[in-house]
Amino acid sequence: MPVHDGDEYCAFRRDLHRHPEPAWCEFYTTSRIVSALRERDLTELHVGPDALATGDRMNVPADDELAEWEARARDAGADPAVLDRMTGGHTGCVAVAERGDGPVVGLRVDIDALPVTESDEQFHLPAREGFRSETEGYMHACGHDAHATIGLATLDAVLDSAFSGTLKVFFQPGEEQVAGGRPMAESGHLDDVDYLYAVHVGLDHPSGEIVCGIDGFLAVRHFRADFTGESAHAGARPEAGRNAVQAMAAAIQNLYGIPRHADGPTRVNAGLVGGGTATNVIPAESYIEGEVRGATTELAEYASEHADRILTSAAAMHDCDVEIATKGEAPSAKSDDALADVIGAVAAGVEGVTSVRDRGDLGGSEDATYMMQRVQDRGGLACYVGVGTDHPSGHHTSEFDVVEADIEIGVDVLAGAIRRVGDGIGGAS
Amino acid sequence: MPVHDGDEYCAFRRDLHRHPEPAWCEFYTTSRIVSALRERDLTELHVGPDALATGDRMNVPADDELAEWEARARDAGADPAVLDRMTGGHTGCVAVAERGDGPVVGLRVDIDALPVTESDEQFHLPAREGFRSETEGYMHACGHDAHATIGLATLDAVLDSAFSGTLKVFFQPGEEQVAGGRPMAESGHLDDVDYLYAVHVGLDHPSGEIVCGIDGFLAVRHFRADFTGESAHAGARPEAGRNAVQAMAAAIQNLYGIPRHADGPTRVNAGLVGGGTATNVIPAESYIEGEVRGATTELAEYASEHADRILTSAAAMHDCDVEIATKGEAPSAKSDDALADVIGAVAAGVEGVTSVRDRGDLGGSEDATYMMQRVQDRGGLACYVGVGTDHPSGHHTSEFDVVEADIEIGVDVLAGAIRRVGDGIGGAS
Amino acid sequence: MPVHDGDEYCAFRRDLHRHPEPAWCEFYTTSRIVSALRERDLTELHVGPDALATGDRMNVPADDELAEWEARARDAGADPAVLDRMTGGHTGCVAVAERGDGPVVGLRVDIDALPVTESDEQFHLPAREGFRSETEGYMHACGHDAHATIGLATLDAVLDSAFSGTLKVFFQPGEEQVAGGRPMAESGHLDDVDYLYAVHVGLDHPSGEIVCGIDGFLAVRHFRADFTGESAHAGARPEAGRNAVQAMAAAIQNLYGIPRHADGPTRVNAGLVGGGTATNVIPAESYIEGEVRGATTELAEYASEHADRILTSAAAMHDCDVEIATKGEAPSAKSDDALADVIGAVAAGVEGVTSVRDRGDLGGSEDATYMMQRVQDRGGLACYVGVGTDHPSGHHTSEFDVVEADIEIGVDVLAGAIRRVGDGIGGAS
Amino acid sequence: MPVHDGDEYCAFRRDLHRHPEPAWCEFYTTSRIVSALRERDLTELHVGPDALATGDRMNVPADDELAEWEARARDAGADPAVLDRMTGGHTGCVAVAERGDGPVVGLRVDIDALPVTESDEQFHLPAREGFRSETEGYMHACGHDAHATIGLATLDAVLDSAFSGTLKVFFQPGEEQVAGGRPMAESGHLDDVDYLYAVHVGLDHPSGEIVCGIDGFLAVRHFRADFTGESAHAGARPEAGRNAVQAMAAAIQNLYGIPRHADGPTRVNAGLVGGGTATNVIPAESYIEGEVRGATTELAEYASEHADRILTSAAAMHDCDVEIATKGEAPSAKSDDALADVIGAVAAGVEGVTSVRDRGDLGGSEDATYMMQRVQDRGGLACYVGVGTDHPSGHHTSEFDVVEADIEIGVDVLAGAIRRVGDGIGGAS
Repeated sequence: MPVHDGDEYCAFRRDLHRHPEPAWCEFYTTSRIVSALRERDLTELHVGPDALATGDRMNVPADDELAEWEARARDAGADPAVLDRMTGGHTGCVAVAERGDGPVVGLRVDIDALPVTESDEQFHLPAREGFRSETEGYMHACGHDAHATIGLATLDAVLDSAFSGTLKVFFQPGEEQVAGGRPMAESGHLDDVDYLYAVHVGLDHPSGEIVCGIDGFLAVRHFRADFTGESAHAGARPEAGRNAVQAMAAAIQNLYGIPRHADGPTRVNAGLVGGGTATNVIPAESYIEGEVRGATTELAEYASEHADRILTSAAAMHDCDVEIATKGEAPSAKSDDALADVIGAVAAGVEGVTSVRDRGDLGGSEDATYMMQRVQDRGGLACYVGVGTDHPSGHHTSEFDVVEADIEIGVDVLAGAIRRVGDGIGGAS
Repeated sequence: MPVHDGDEYCAFRRDLHRHPEPAWCEFYTTSRIVSALRERDLTELHVGPDALATGDRMNVPADDELAEWEARARDAGADPAVLDRMTGGHTGCVAVAERGDGPVVGLRVDIDALPVTESDEQFHLPAREGFRSETEGYMHACGHDAHATIGLATLDAVLDSAFSGTLKVFFQPGEEQVAGGRPMAESGHLDDVDYLYAVHVGLDHPSGEIVCGIDGFLAVRHFRADFTGESAHAGARPEAGRNAVQAMAAAIQNLYGIPRHADGPTRVNAGLVGGGTATNVIPAESYIEGEVRGATTELAEYASEHADRILTSAAAMHDCDVEIATKGEAPSAKSDDALADVIGAVAAGVEGVTSVRDRGDLGGSEDATYMMQRVQDRGGLACYVGVGTDHPSGHHTSEFDVVEADIEIGVDVLAGAIRRVGDGIGGAS
Repeated sequence: MPVHDGDEYCAFRRDLHRHPEPAWCEFYTTSRIVSALRERDLTELHVGPDALATGDRMNVPADDELAEWEARARDAGADPAVLDRMTGGHTGCVAVAERGDGPVVGLRVDIDALPVTESDEQFHLPAREGFRSETEGYMHACGHDAHATIGLATLDAVLDSAFSGTLKVFFQPGEEQVAGGRPMAESGHLDDVDYLYAVHVGLDHPSGEIVCGIDGFLAVRHFRADFTGESAHAGARPEAGRNAVQAMAAAIQNLYGIPRHADGPTRVNAGLVGGGTATNVIPAESYIEGEVRGATTELAEYASEHADRILTSAAAMHDCDVEIATKGEAPSAKSDDALADVIGAVAAGVEGVTSVRDRGDLGGSEDATYMMQRVQDRGGLACYVGVGTDHPSGHHTSEFDVVEADIEIGVDVLAGAIRRVGDGIGGAS
Repeated sequence: MPVHDGDEYCAFRRDLHRHPEPAWCEFYTTSRIVSALRERDLTELHVGPDALATGDRMNVPADDELAEWEARARDAGADPAVLDRMTGGHTGCVAVAERGDGPVVGLRVDIDALPVTESDEQFHLPAREGFRSETEGYMHACGHDAHATIGLATLDAVLDSAFSGTLKVFFQPGEEQVAGGRPMAESGHLDDVDYLYAVHVGLDHPSGEIVCGIDGFLAVRHFRADFTGESAHAGARPEAGRNAVQAMAAAIQNLYGIPRHADGPTRVNAGLVGGGTATNVIPAESYIEGEVRGATTELAEYASEHADRILTSAAAMHDCDVEIATKGEAPSAKSDDALADVIGAVAAGVEGVTSVRDRGDLGGSEDATYMMQRVQDRGGLACYVGVGTDHPSGHHTSEFDVVEADIEIGVDVLAGAIRRVGDGIGGAS
């Protein structure tokens, strides 16, 4: 068994950083992770279709787009045998290491990137040190390259310890589109997990700060509504059209008017819309890509039902058809105190940790919640941990970056906590 | 048989003017007309239910409102026996006089008034000469008192001539709400009519001008949409409401957006709207009283179908119910050249006529069109005649009035034309 | 000095109940309160204009409506001299009783009624026992008759005790329209108050329950927007109109779309709207009576600014004018712990109290907040107290009623607390 | 001077057909026309900037797009010297031939193509015979290749006749975007024109039919509105956004509600719209490309003023900015009887003409109207002539084509008419 050290992890992270891939296109990323895992002493390694309930995948790109990303991964040196396993957009993997009696502990990390163009300024470290994105227009602008690295290094650290039990590391695809959490949650691999940790770097917390348990996930649904009417010459035969842009506009106006709910915050947004072809043609097609959110899963469902009714009625109002598709979805969730307490106890003793916060609010959405809920629904415990890092600019921006030394802090905290829960904690299965 | 003269007609017109009554409430008016007709030598006289297809009546007021108007008529001296015939809002009548062989000629006049408060200024002749409306808030502001008088006097003039054939005079209720034309058209009394004239005074034509054939009727539908949702406290439980005002607003916004039609003008208006009860209550009820029109019956139907779909979808959009009722309706129509030519030929020789125009455009709506269409559909001819009068202010205003001498011009023209068509005209049945 | 007992208070409350009066029309109510207060040993009694910053009154009815209510009060036996003080809608009063050294303690009660028709069913106690509303269409449906009685009886109880300090009782008009709080807060009479209690019965708390400190007031603004355009014949000249109903509908659609705010709940409602005159007339006038709310004063202002901009722009969009008036307003507020603690301590010992809750949420709006804020801004403390009562149906409904015995509980708790704070509490003035 | 024959014109037309170019990019087309004209005996030849009031050009593409089309023309063999004259999108030309005394007669033809992909089916003659568009995605789908050919051949025919006077042929760019008529009308070259003909093939008229004078041009304005707000995270900070998509939707809803006008047809369309970037971002940008039309220039201006006000107010309503640009524009126009009569008289004697219609309605828009109006405003006469052709599918579709023999008919009719008006006609200068 080889010895793994910080240099290896740094190289690993930078390699992933150079090859950012969006949801269901993490071909190079998964291949690279799988290659690394194969060097470890695992009991099982589930790749692609074996790691997912593939029918639950949402928002999978068209075949030609998938093929393009797969070809790019192949060109970049991805293992062809692993690529073959992933054809059709079955990315991600689950590593299982059994180490004697004890609870089954899970660690979930996400691996996908964003459609953001990375900065090429010299003050941006990846640019300066030569590991800037090699796929123009895409970037690891949310730190998932660090997450994947934490997943690998935490596995090593746990295996290298006296941990007794089973460790499962979930390398989840498609988080940015809240599209990958459900298929991995439904894969069956979570069903025997007693304790699940998920982790995120940054989130406006500085280097040295650990947030033991994060809550405040807004449940969310991303949808796309495609309106179809009939075109006509706008001057000569306006009455012959069925105007998909009028339908779209009526829908937008009323979507934002979904009644507020006394039980808690809701959100609605028509974030990307369009329609029509030319000034002098009654538009036959239009679309809305939007989202609804709620402080609880019920609130998001409340808003979602209203949205569906409004979209359907707006289409009917202008004699158009509409197809509404869910493009991504995630419930709300809560971090369990017992697991958060373990993080707190461990973090206090980790070198480099200068601040331990009990609780934090995400204030956004995340589909780790599907996996947390799956575990909690079956009697287990789950906890979402924040690992601070001084990121020079906000998440999802061109100049986002993580301090590589903070990756090690995250590994120390998580590996310490996993070892400790391996010894059992009160109240759980 | 008594001799009828101008003084009698003047008194008759002023009596009607003092007792203006809206649609289906023309109790005094009909009673007064029936009393006068009974003094004539008629073959048949059909009153109330006998003059109407009563099931086709639209927009009949509630029972208590009908009862109030009936009581007012009774107090004003209406014949109780005639009132009894009209219970429940069956107003109007049809007079039939057979005078030997020859065609059946019809004359249609309307008899209802408007919810307008009559001027009490001294420059307003009815005020100055003491025959101003005795029912505050209602007024003969469109000259239907003159129309009824023309109907009676034309009957007298025709009967006093060598006319051979059958004359039917239709005293139609409910024109202002386009609510009375259809039930009278469907009564059966028009089914043997070969030639039908309808008449209107004024219409911005000066005293002495005759318009032989008027076209340009906009087909129209008046509707009322009642939205029903559910109320809720706007502060404490906004999500518990189903907001009928949001539904109404969505409907209004989209009604005005019904696509224009290349085949001709259409119109739409949400003329009277309302909803809700208090600032802090999510509104459970709202309504729109509106109309659609078209240059042809088909165009009005086109707009009407769009309106229904918009109203229904707007309700569905906000989880409300909606009931849509037609409150009045009239098709488009065209005046037949052959009848208009007769008017032109006769008018040229009538004393007081200083201008004869072949054609005119109404530019509004009228439910005489139902009766014209009925006759034309069965192979007869129909024509809508304009009799100019210097009205001091516009139709439907507080100071509208007609020059009484112009009534006689109208009678001379119409009686002359009816006599002439009694001799037969080319092209008709 | 007369002895006051339960029978007197019961008669007093029932007298007020029989004479419900809306905002700025509390002529009989104020007169009756003033008459009772004159029998007490007061230092000062400020009536009408002396009790209010009259320029801050909002939503004052038109003169003829005020005159009608004043005449009705006169007929019911109100003291003419007191009525004269209140001409023009200057209702309400402030009673001041100085009792030696000590803090100035205030008690605020509201006195107005609602436009609700009272039940005449026998199961409704006021109907059964003969003190149902004598003004059809108005009703004390929120218990302000009980509040005024609590104000009077608490004054008696305090004066009858060893209380040292000054007691001021504020009988505030116009709470239901959040229209009376500000002018009384700005009157100057609050400026030396160290501790202020306000009280409300019911609020879904059962008989025997005391809520020591109520928070969760939504700051609110009631507005009325009047749109003015230009009418035109909808068939003949649609382009000549400037459509106030289109403006109104555009405003409604967009008011509900005011963006949600991450800092806390907001509310918006177009609760009472209308426009137009007839189906065939382009509407020249329309209006929206609506409200915005927020969990904090800042959030309500945020929504209010958006509402103003939307109303103004919707008018401009359709070439209409709009006048926007504030009809009522209230900030948010918080009850101070120190005063709530006193209520808790006292309530535990009051006969009939079976449950003491520390805190409660109003979830609605109240203009007592103006008065609380005034006191707090000047360094004093304020607290809004709930006195439970088994009300047979919800506030603002036809069958609302209060258990009269609970009035006594409220008096015991408040008088006890006032006596106790007279002795001084930590941390205040 | 060479002899020109049908084969040459056929080759010319097919060459243009193979090189379709959109507005202001007609580099190859203009170059090819100029080369042909230089072989003729002209008095003047104005190219590019000399043929246009270049500041009046509307909707000129960006520099890089112009450069791309210019390079393509160069590659296809366009004369480099002519291309240099047109740099920056100054396309089109005016040919002048003075032939002794007599009136100045103009002929206007348009030369641009459309963004339509041409059919490659064998039943489509250009595909079968090898002159299908060589620029994928663009096509002469409205017959302007035939128009340019008619312009050239008519010039030849007139010069080859006894015509006395001056002939000017205007090869106008940018008609499809109603962007080129105004700059050519304002160039000065029309200012001495006494009689102007414009011509269009097809328009649903069959081969052999001539329409002497076409009216029914809808005045039109194409506009683009760009809304700018501010983006924000839709979940975390919805209130921080200024939502450009809400502004756009409010504008669309109300644009379609511009009141109909009693004076004649109007049109409105939001034909191409879009906004936003992602589901979870409050949209900061959006746009509407739309148009308004009217049966008269006044009606189009009426609608245009409403549109501007609605766009501006919708932006203000959501605290956004908006920039509104006119992208194309054309007035209405009428064909003069005197010129149409000449066409009728000539056409009756032209071989192949089987039907002569006095008048026709375009029912759409055209910017020849700018040029017609310019001539008429200065006392001249203008007439828009239709030359029928059996086009296999509608204008602007992939399978549109013209029967080449009909080009000759058009030339015979126009050349005949130009010769005849050279002899002078009654009523004109």
